[in-house]
Amino acid sequence: MTFSVYGTGAVGAYYGGRLAERGNTVHFLARSDYRQIKEKGIKVNSPRGDFHLETPSVFQDARRMPPSDVLLISLKTTANKGLREHLMTLVHEKTALVILQNGLGMEEEFQSWFPDNPILGGMCFICARKKEPAVFEHLDYGLITLGTLDKKERPLRDRIGKLMEEAGIPVTLVEDLKEARWRKLLWNIPYNGLSVTLNCNTKAMMENRYSRKIIETLMMEVLEGAATCGCPIGKKAVEKMLHFTEKMTPYEPSMKLDYLSGRPMEIEYMYDRPLQAASDRGCTMKGVSLLRDQLKYIQEQYSKLKPGQ
Amino acid sequence: MTFSVYGTGAVGAYYGGRLAERGNTVHFLARSDYRQIKEKGIKVNSPRGDFHLETPSVFQDARRMPPSDVLLISLKTTANKGLREHLMTLVHEKTALVILQNGLGMEEEFQSWFPDNPILGGMCFICARKKEPAVFEHLDYGLITLGTLDKKERPLRDRIGKLMEEAGIPVTLVEDLKEARWRKLLWNIPYNGLSVTLNCNTKAMMENRYSRKIIETLMMEVLEGAATCGCPIGKKAVEKMLHFTEKMTPYEPSMKLDYLSGRPMEIEYMYDRPLQAASDRGCTMKGVSLLRDQLKYIQEQYSKLKPGQ
Repeated sequence: MTFSVYGTGAVGAYYGGRLAERGNTVHFLARSDYRQIKEKGIKVNSPRGDFHLETPSVFQDARRMPPSDVLLISLKTTANKGLREHLMTLVHEKTALVILQNGLGMEEEFQSWFPDNPILGGMCFICARKKEPAVFEHLDYGLITLGTLDKKERPLRDRIGKLMEEAGIPVTLVEDLKEARWRKLLWNIPYNGLSVTLNCNTKAMMENRYSRKIIETLMMEVLEGAATCGCPIGKKAVEKMLHFTEKMTPYEPSMKLDYLSGRPMEIEYMYDRPLQAASDRGCTMKGVSLLRDQLKYIQEQYSKLKPGQ
Repeated sequence: MTFSVYGTGAVGAYYGGRLAERGNTVHFLARSDYRQIKEKGIKVNSPRGDFHLETPSVFQDARRMPPSDVLLISLKTTANKGLREHLMTLVHEKTALVILQNGLGMEEEFQSWFPDNPILGGMCFICARKKEPAVFEHLDYGLITLGTLDKKERPLRDRIGKLMEEAGIPVTLVEDLKEARWRKLLWNIPYNGLSVTLNCNTKAMMENRYSRKIIETLMMEVLEGAATCGCPIGKKAVEKMLHFTEKMTPYEPSMKLDYLSGRPMEIEYMYDRPLQAASDRGCTMKGVSLLRDQLKYIQEQYSKLKPGQ
């Protein structure tokens, strides 16, 4: 099985890098950092072992990439608009797409673009960041939770999962991708948004009784939304997630980093889509909606200040 | 009728000043700015006519103030805790208290402290600020809406209102003080809180579709809260208030100014009390509650940074 990594940020570099390090054929698409990766290769510092791909197969233009069996989509969802066209030359008859993005509804969208291709979703639980062009830091965790949009692709999911595990990537296989997406939203919706509106990291949020109360309120709403969409998740998940986050090394969620770097925030797939899915079925998620609107306000004011973004 | 002004900030200086300028006896309590007022008097610049009280009757210690018939309470509600004791020497058998504060439940609290005294509420609709110690700027508006906690005090309300009008203060008399308080909250709850959480003035809030949507959502909740508490207000009030605020000169609500100056914000009377009143009667106001918790988070983080406040 051969791989292509669409988007060589921290996530793409780490997972693609692990697969390449293990001897798999992996092609990387890198746009802004193409030249540096071509010159220096891909360097990753990791508590699970540093590695350096000295001469990775890297491309700046997707149209020049060779065909591969598995296409890992590791771009932010903010780049999904218009992505279909860029993928046309990469998605062949049997190419499997593995969507390593945050939010809800991405897999369904990719499936609508490529109705005959296998679509998998991968929820990455990882702390990693780009240190400088071509140099990445893996800080903690690394689990991928893999599921399929269509049951019939489970054998493929198992094969991809096995290759990942062989490359040192911990993998959890799930039967219900949609439920796994909602479980991930249970964390992402409160922590990502509040890290921006309250300008804080996970530690500050967990230590203050008021932000903690907001987090709990939002999580309960996400559970309602999930249940309305056919993914009942027990309330214990809230307690577990709060407890887990409390124990985490203080962490700046990705939306906070996007905001601080002047990149657009992933509001559409992380907030709009879940809100829409729930509201289509009669569930309002009022607090989540309010948080979403605050983020959209902030995003718009921000783009006014930085017209280049 | 003689007056005492408890708290010579912009509100106290303007209204007390107008009454004194007209020839009424007015005693001012001033703490931080006592010396400057004693030296320079009280200067007010106003589109309705500048004035200068050269030798106002000003006190630094409430215990030295002479008795008066009407006590105007023009402190922020954040000073209400422990205020009862400071008022003991000022409130005589027939002293009427006129509460010129923002929020809900202040009059009931003052009544519980002084059960036999007439209690009035005054909702000040005014843009005014302290320019420097003893110098104040009246920028716009100035209406006081006057109501009583007890029906039997309406004649007193009418007499005080008449004196105010004679002093050039526009007055509206209302029969239902509680409803008037809720009407004022309809503006205060969205605009004050959001000006802090979104770091903006009224203009920015009204121009952006997302903040505007949040404002509308919060206003609809306040209407629900008001109705639950026995003060039904028609939905037209929302449209009217939005329209009115749109036309206003861009304005920084008082909570924003408090926040920027490192003063505590009036969260308790403006948010906690209305939330409690509504929730006691089964109405949740979820969005208002979320906004309140955000403000409390900000307040606590802020006090950490400024331990002196």
